[in-house]
Amino acid sequence: MILVDGQPATVVDVADRGLAYGDGLFETMRLHQGQITRLDLHLARLQQDCQRLRLNPDLVALKQELEAVAQACVGGVIKLMVTRGSGQRGYASDPQQAARRIVQHSALPDWPQSNFTEGVALFACQTRLARQPLLAGIKHLNRLEQVLARAEWNSSEYAEGLMLDTAGLVTDGVFSNLFFVRAGELHTPLLDQAGVAGVMRAQILELAQQLGLNTYQRPIELHELSSMEEVLCCNSLYGIWPVRRYADLEWPVGALTLDLQQRIANGE
Amino acid sequence: MILVDGQPATVVDVADRGLAYGDGLFETMRLHQGQITRLDLHLARLQQDCQRLRLNPDLVALKQELEAVAQACVGGVIKLMVTRGSGQRGYASDPQQAARRIVQHSALPDWPQSNFTEGVALFACQTRLARQPLLAGIKHLNRLEQVLARAEWNSSEYAEGLMLDTAGLVTDGVFSNLFFVRAGELHTPLLDQAGVAGVMRAQILELAQQLGLNTYQRPIELHELSSMEEVLCCNSLYGIWPVRRYADLEWPVGALTLDLQQRIANGE
Repeated sequence: MILVDGQPATVVDVADRGLAYGDGLFETMRLHQGQITRLDLHLARLQQDCQRLRLNPDLVALKQELEAVAQACVGGVIKLMVTRGSGQRGYASDPQQAARRIVQHSALPDWPQSNFTEGVALFACQTRLARQPLLAGIKHLNRLEQVLARAEWNSSEYAEGLMLDTAGLVTDGVFSNLFFVRAGELHTPLLDQAGVAGVMRAQILELAQQLGLNTYQRPIELHELSSMEEVLCCNSLYGIWPVRRYADLEWPVGALTLDLQQRIANGE
Repeated sequence: MILVDGQPATVVDVADRGLAYGDGLFETMRLHQGQITRLDLHLARLQQDCQRLRLNPDLVALKQELEAVAQACVGGVIKLMVTRGSGQRGYASDPQQAARRIVQHSALPDWPQSNFTEGVALFACQTRLARQPLLAGIKHLNRLEQVLARAEWNSSEYAEGLMLDTAGLVTDGVFSNLFFVRAGELHTPLLDQAGVAGVMRAQILELAQQLGLNTYQRPIELHELSSMEEVLCCNSLYGIWPVRRYADLEWPVGALTLDLQQRIANGE
């Protein structure tokens, strides 16, 4: 099921600026029993990102369309794209132009259960993320770096890849955010120069605060990873996976990681 | 007139990876009397960029489609997009997947004649280009930086904008490349970290070599601009415009600039 500006469709105008320039952003959301999980957080992030890119989607229509797809499809994944709509050739845009809304349903990926219980290995991506503060954190449609990074491995040995930025800072996974546990405290990359500030990352930061855990959003150097006691990756679809291995580093499936995983799965 | 994979169309599959991730590249070509100007250079650049992004378009079909649109439309602009085609949700791609070809015709912009004779002013863009060697030089579909930069001005006083990279190096225009003349020699940004290596830039470098001019592709600092004697911007559609002004700097319409402009216009 796909809605383009509220209408069932399988195609989009070839002049869409999302296609021409990646001029837009997206959200990937979990659908469970007809409800979109953490919809409020997704819409808050969407609105924030839209402001940064000066996109003006019709939010009332957007919510109705998400609701319609959620009701019809019940479970799986809802992907929402917001683009600047159709344009003339050339980068100049009309500030008044209504953004285009694309809502797509798909099935939930079939992850191995061991990802959740025994943890995952992260591929050491050679593709580095450029440092661009104007776009950092935004889930925008300019994702060639992730495409190149994801093409680096095809072994099922690796469930995710770890990406550094061009300054060598640990940034995020290809489709996940990262948290590190040390001395009962949580550390996660700052994402002011690169990376996507995911909704599950925001949820975990909020949960940690509720639990009274110290959390640090800060630049994280690669050499620090050897001193970390637990590592986890997260996104809105799978929740939390413990990370067992990256390059020559190994970590146990940690107690705090499993506690957070359980709380997130329970809807906290 | 638009051809998508050779068929007349106005829409493209909503699952196209060009839309989802900007996973593709494009060429913008001048069409004159049924012929695409510098088609060989465009196709050479396209093939080089396709290799870097591991895209595999059917080049025989592509040439036939360009020819068909050129014959039918006679004059104006032909824009070609090559995307990785339709994909499942997620960054992983099939290395064997056939790329999608999109050929679009549009009218040539109506530039003021004074752009060519009296030169243009460049807006001083605050949007900086990220430094990403893996994508530098490629005319790919991840163009949010250009969209943001072009939105910085709407006065017709400025025909183009000058963009620095995040290290402060002079890189290119929003839709043009830049050349600087000093002591009869040509200097142009190296574009190994950011920017698009345009076909007109390649043409001018080749022409300069034929004329026995020394040319330097190198990192250019902003402070160097005050010592330059002529400045020009260029692209495949308009050819060459003299640059008269940037910030508080001014330059004359130079003799070498006008000579190169004339030679390019004459098809050299």
